[in-house]
Amino acid sequence: MIHIREDLLIEKIKEFYKPHPRIVNGFGDDTIILKEIPTQNLVFSVDATIEGRHFYPDILPYEQVGHRALAGALSDLAVVGATPLTFIVNLEIPKRFPENNVLRIYRGFEELGKAFCISPSGGNITASERVGLVLTVIGEIPRDRTISRSHAEPGDKVVVTGDLGRVRTALNIINRHEIKKKIPSDQLDEILEKFYKPWPKINFMKKLLSEVNINASIDISDGLGADLSRIARASQVEIVIYERKLPFKPYLRDVARMIGTPLFQLVVGSGEEYEIAFTLNEEEFEKLKRLGYDVTEIGEVTHSPHVGVRMVKEDGSEVYVDNMGYDHLKG
Amino acid sequence: MIHIREDLLIEKIKEFYKPHPRIVNGFGDDTIILKEIPTQNLVFSVDATIEGRHFYPDILPYEQVGHRALAGALSDLAVVGATPLTFIVNLEIPKRFPENNVLRIYRGFEELGKAFCISPSGGNITASERVGLVLTVIGEIPRDRTISRSHAEPGDKVVVTGDLGRVRTALNIINRHEIKKKIPSDQLDEILEKFYKPWPKINFMKKLLSEVNINASIDISDGLGADLSRIARASQVEIVIYERKLPFKPYLRDVARMIGTPLFQLVVGSGEEYEIAFTLNEEEFEKLKRLGYDVTEIGEVTHSPHVGVRMVKEDGSEVYVDNMGYDHLKG
Repeated sequence: MIHIREDLLIEKIKEFYKPHPRIVNGFGDDTIILKEIPTQNLVFSVDATIEGRHFYPDILPYEQVGHRALAGALSDLAVVGATPLTFIVNLEIPKRFPENNVLRIYRGFEELGKAFCISPSGGNITASERVGLVLTVIGEIPRDRTISRSHAEPGDKVVVTGDLGRVRTALNIINRHEIKKKIPSDQLDEILEKFYKPWPKINFMKKLLSEVNINASIDISDGLGADLSRIARASQVEIVIYERKLPFKPYLRDVARMIGTPLFQLVVGSGEEYEIAFTLNEEEFEKLKRLGYDVTEIGEVTHSPHVGVRMVKEDGSEVYVDNMGYDHLKG
Repeated sequence: MIHIREDLLIEKIKEFYKPHPRIVNGFGDDTIILKEIPTQNLVFSVDATIEGRHFYPDILPYEQVGHRALAGALSDLAVVGATPLTFIVNLEIPKRFPENNVLRIYRGFEELGKAFCISPSGGNITASERVGLVLTVIGEIPRDRTISRSHAEPGDKVVVTGDLGRVRTALNIINRHEIKKKIPSDQLDEILEKFYKPWPKINFMKKLLSEVNINASIDISDGLGADLSRIARASQVEIVIYERKLPFKPYLRDVARMIGTPLFQLVVGSGEEYEIAFTLNEEEFEKLKRLGYDVTEIGEVTHSPHVGVRMVKEDGSEVYVDNMGYDHLKG
């Protein structure tokens, strides 16, 4: 353990800085200055990753802490199909936190940074009892794009990208060696990879939104149930989803049995998936189907006085899944 | 104490939201969308306020916690003379934190919000062991403005706004009733006001920068010594300041004696003052003098191989004051 001086640490972190052409000043000022351009709108989002809540250092190496924090923040930009421009890092660390761990967190940003041509353009370091990262991400979208979680319309189809459930499954098995031993290694790798190395759907959504218009969208950060519920409440609509339509890796059925958790809970309640759920009208949905994206129609927005998310289960029974997911204040 | 649901809390916080004309979407989405305009550059800054580090709830009411956090964040915009546009609130609170205290923090934003026509346009709430606020502020400046802490030039004059030392003095006396009793009440009020209700120099610097060009600037958040040292290192110059020129309220001399701390330590080491220190060339300095702003010339940028901040004391001796101030990781 070595003692860190904030300013000297910032000097070291500068090696991770490669200026974006739209950033006017260099790393090191308290403010970041960005050139505006008239055909675009800017988008911002802030995302927090806190030790003991979003990660435990004993099960997650600091490189992965950095990666997952940035993936989560960028996922908010993916929701509107934004092109990331840069990000700002607010780091909270204990007083005697090893300097090398700070650099490991920054190293964790590199893979996503390279993939999306972005780097941190500033930040703060504050002392705290535990590690915390608050990332502000900045991106841009075409000026005419209007997507909001409040724009879902009755009659819309509800669609989700990729597959769901692997992250919650990973959290359930990560310390249970007797279960891990029973899962074929290629399946185990695939389950753990989604937990350790989530990848925000930036390029996927940019491409998709260049071809299709959607009404409302959200990323699956707290669980499909909880996140769709946000669309439902913001749009004052009911969303109906069908258990039989939910996308998941087929082997999760066996793993769910091993864990002793109903499969639909793993799928509907899995947070930090960073898949995107969105709604779009029938016509745009038909267009989307022809384009062959890796997306699954899971339900629809309905005319109903009830605001929330109803799931029709495989046995025909129904259940409200609004609270099936992670509420940060309930834990 | 009541149990809080994150989403319901966000509903309540919406009452503090009045949309800025350049914000395209409403409060409630994960991303904030801002219209770009071509003649301006955007500026961002992130600032953290952590319980047990920047404040203790027993000596600072939550309204003031909110006010001081926003004042500190806006102060970074004042450094470059920016017009604030909006801000994003990342709030960390303990699980059983009273909802009313969250609203008190938000109420604390209102006075500054009204003064600068801004309101929060989004945010996050995360559970934590203690209260923490990370504010991202967004503003804009004319496109041709280039000020950076790395642009100080040898020959520049060093100037500071307002007066220094009251905040450190307030922290020294806040719990010492025997000293407070001895200070005349109008002086005591003035000392405490700067601590409880700091005011960022937004309008002051906007006006000043519309008339004068400056090279480097920084706000006094960690202490004049520590903050000027950042200009010195970023610009690779030496800064010389003179104790006899430092601006402070005359009565601080008596108070310093009562506390038993050398006056210059109160003045040079006082953080969270949110005054602005800046450097400008001789010609611009002459212009500034004629304009009658409440600023004080305290020294100059010199040709010297030494990078840092040297203070010439009243007795003619010299001392390096780079470390006289608050380093968040040293405490």
